[in-house]
Amino acid sequence: MIQQVEITLPRLGRGYHLVTSNIERELPDLPEKGLLHILVKHTSAGITLNENADPTVRGDFESFINKMIPENDPVYEHTLEGLDDMPAHLKASVIGAEITVPITNSRLNLGTWQGIYFCEFRNGKRSRKLVLTVYS
Amino acid sequence: MIQQVEITLPRLGRGYHLVTSNIERELPDLPEKGLLHILVKHTSAGITLNENADPTVRGDFESFINKMIPENDPVYEHTLEGLDDMPAHLKASVIGAEITVPITNSRLNLGTWQGIYFCEFRNGKRSRKLVLTVYS
Amino acid sequence: MIQQVEITLPRLGRGYHLVTSNIERELPDLPEKGLLHILVKHTSAGITLNENADPTVRGDFESFINKMIPENDPVYEHTLEGLDDMPAHLKASVIGAEITVPITNSRLNLGTWQGIYFCEFRNGKRSRKLVLTVYS
Repeated sequence: MIQQVEITLPRLGRGYHLVTSNIERELPDLPEKGLLHILVKHTSAGITLNENADPTVRGDFESFINKMIPENDPVYEHTLEGLDDMPAHLKASVIGAEITVPITNSRLNLGTWQGIYFCEFRNGKRSRKLVLTVYS
Repeated sequence: MIQQVEITLPRLGRGYHLVTSNIERELPDLPEKGLLHILVKHTSAGITLNENADPTVRGDFESFINKMIPENDPVYEHTLEGLDDMPAHLKASVIGAEITVPITNSRLNLGTWQGIYFCEFRNGKRSRKLVLTVYS
Repeated sequence: MIQQVEITLPRLGRGYHLVTSNIERELPDLPEKGLLHILVKHTSAGITLNENADPTVRGDFESFINKMIPENDPVYEHTLEGLDDMPAHLKASVIGAEITVPITNSRLNLGTWQGIYFCEFRNGKRSRKLVLTVYS
């Protein structure tokens, strides 16, 4: 069986945000076993699994990935939409815009320290949509 | 239900190519709701979701990722297959070789600006195979 | 149908390890057509598809990714768990902690040169758990 819902996240601002409970709250009753697929419907935001405890991890993601994929790189030709735009597209493909998570005993089956990060790569607080698909 | 088809892309050459319609054309009739999984059966090519409008975005991917993962890095020991080979393997894992996309109302449910990029990381025009799996 | 099993890998040590046969050995009888999803239940390890033949490729992954995402970067604030910890979290999201692979004719349908890499980003030989989900 496939169940699907499209949701809009709260406007979170640039950075890496723990959204596991935002997503769990929007899910239908979960099957005993199955999988949850999450798509970010944007090309300048991402989704990934990472550490759910220490907020400095999310801060270090922002600082380090900004160095790895900087604004103002002289190779960029796509610059009309702002300095933050082309790096945001690159980050969206390096981090990824979709993940799948197993469901076991009617709950998301993540590791103890794993959470779902929503990654806002652009400046400003934007309205961002996700498609959640549960299959069982 | 699972439907599966293996396809060969046109020989596209090095770079990032928008292949959404190449893929849609090869799909069976889509279910009302479901998911499409796409695997690239190669270790020097990738697949990702990104901006479907301005071609300079795809050009900037090629230029920037070539700087981030350069040819000729002195750490490489795997050099016998050409200067473009080891960077291509690294890019295949950083960008990824498989994605899943939701299907809603019998169509791929991507954001307005999202398209599917096939990423050819090696020089030359190579024959590249994808496995498409639709589940519903 | 969904079949699910949680497995523990042998303690492999830091680096990139070909684990295709470790995983195949733990799978239930595979359906004729379907998909296998693999989740790494940790935030400092990853899983990816890459070259299954020349071990220098795996060595070059270790050397190059260590340069791309170094220890001791001055931006890191999350340093209490060791120099290898924050880079390990970053690598887990750049490489990814979950993949999906198609099943065709009751076997994993990978390219000739593709294998599954388990990526241990931390020092030491750690016990690492995967969730394997087969759906058909």
